[in-house]
Amino acid sequence: MTHQKATNITWHEGNLKRDERFAALKASGATLWFTGLPSSGKSTIASALEQVLVQRGLHAYRLDGDNIRFGLNKNLGFSAEDRKENIRRIGEVAKLFADSGTIALTSFISPYAADRNAARALHDQAGLPFLEVFVDTPIDECEKRDPKGLYKKARAGEIKGFTGVDDPYEPPQAPELRLASGSMNVEACVRACLELLTSRRVITAHR
Amino acid sequence: MTHQKATNITWHEGNLKRDERFAALKASGATLWFTGLPSSGKSTIASALEQVLVQRGLHAYRLDGDNIRFGLNKNLGFSAEDRKENIRRIGEVAKLFADSGTIALTSFISPYAADRNAARALHDQAGLPFLEVFVDTPIDECEKRDPKGLYKKARAGEIKGFTGVDDPYEPPQAPELRLASGSMNVEACVRACLELLTSRRVITAHR
Repeated sequence: MTHQKATNITWHEGNLKRDERFAALKASGATLWFTGLPSSGKSTIASALEQVLVQRGLHAYRLDGDNIRFGLNKNLGFSAEDRKENIRRIGEVAKLFADSGTIALTSFISPYAADRNAARALHDQAGLPFLEVFVDTPIDECEKRDPKGLYKKARAGEIKGFTGVDDPYEPPQAPELRLASGSMNVEACVRACLELLTSRRVITAHR
Repeated sequence: MTHQKATNITWHEGNLKRDERFAALKASGATLWFTGLPSSGKSTIASALEQVLVQRGLHAYRLDGDNIRFGLNKNLGFSAEDRKENIRRIGEVAKLFADSGTIALTSFISPYAADRNAARALHDQAGLPFLEVFVDTPIDECEKRDPKGLYKKARAGEIKGFTGVDDPYEPPQAPELRLASGSMNVEACVRACLELLTSRRVITAHR
């Protein structure tokens, strides 16, 4: 009779290689970088996608204002320099998650192309997929939604430097995915993300 | 005949709850915080443990100088303020990994008790396990190993502020685990970590 010892352990010198890791975990890491105007629906879509992936047993994790601005980046304000550093750190953390075999879903306005491209370059250098998802909702639709009344305050001059009102949003020129979320519902947006992840072999059709 | 659509998707309003996440992933997140003198063996043990966990299909990820100092924290130096910020960011990122259902293994000297305790407090507030692992190798043994010749340079005055030579190391007063790695081999250290994770129900004996 053979006993498999649960605590049987083996390892090799040096670090775990990425292909060993992904094979053992039956998972591939990647970053889906959601970008779009305030109230465009980024977080709603990213949250629904996160749920669907996790229900399939896949590690997916959303980085958003709630868990970044009050944690890792709580010592950053809204100056041009701090906004850039904010996105830089998010890009670095997303890369670590992707490297670990998790699908990182970042949900930030990230209005400047240069900052998004820097995050992309980090992933390219590390050989990890960076998939830019442009949540392309017309500004009048975003402004109509305005769940926190921020557009209204920006129009009234009570908030300065608000993206789409008195600060620019630079739309991605060649995103991996464009979601016309003014005319697509959340389910359709999630399906489009799943198809992208499947076509890039981050996930399989069965999982 | 019933077809299970692979793209069947459901989600709820609001964010995924932690218990839903961990149940779906059959995983629990936690942080193992390795601390100890330079050349005490932190990274060797953490790397072996990471391999063993990943081989079991568990998401584990090591944060260490290689992937943090040259990435997220590349804009930090070695002033007292920067060292504190270095450990603060590492604590925040480890917490995110733990929240995502990954076992984060941090491998840094982290010489000051106050900084380690701040990382612990972050986890406590978030209801996530923080397990401090003191790699307690006598300094003469560390200095004998000295693979990069850093103790030698510090003794010669070529490196200033080197922990254990001219900068203090504050040993943990109540670590969850103490590894006498001067007299325990790597396998014994890994087994002790696995036992700790099992006793805290982060992992089960079968996985």
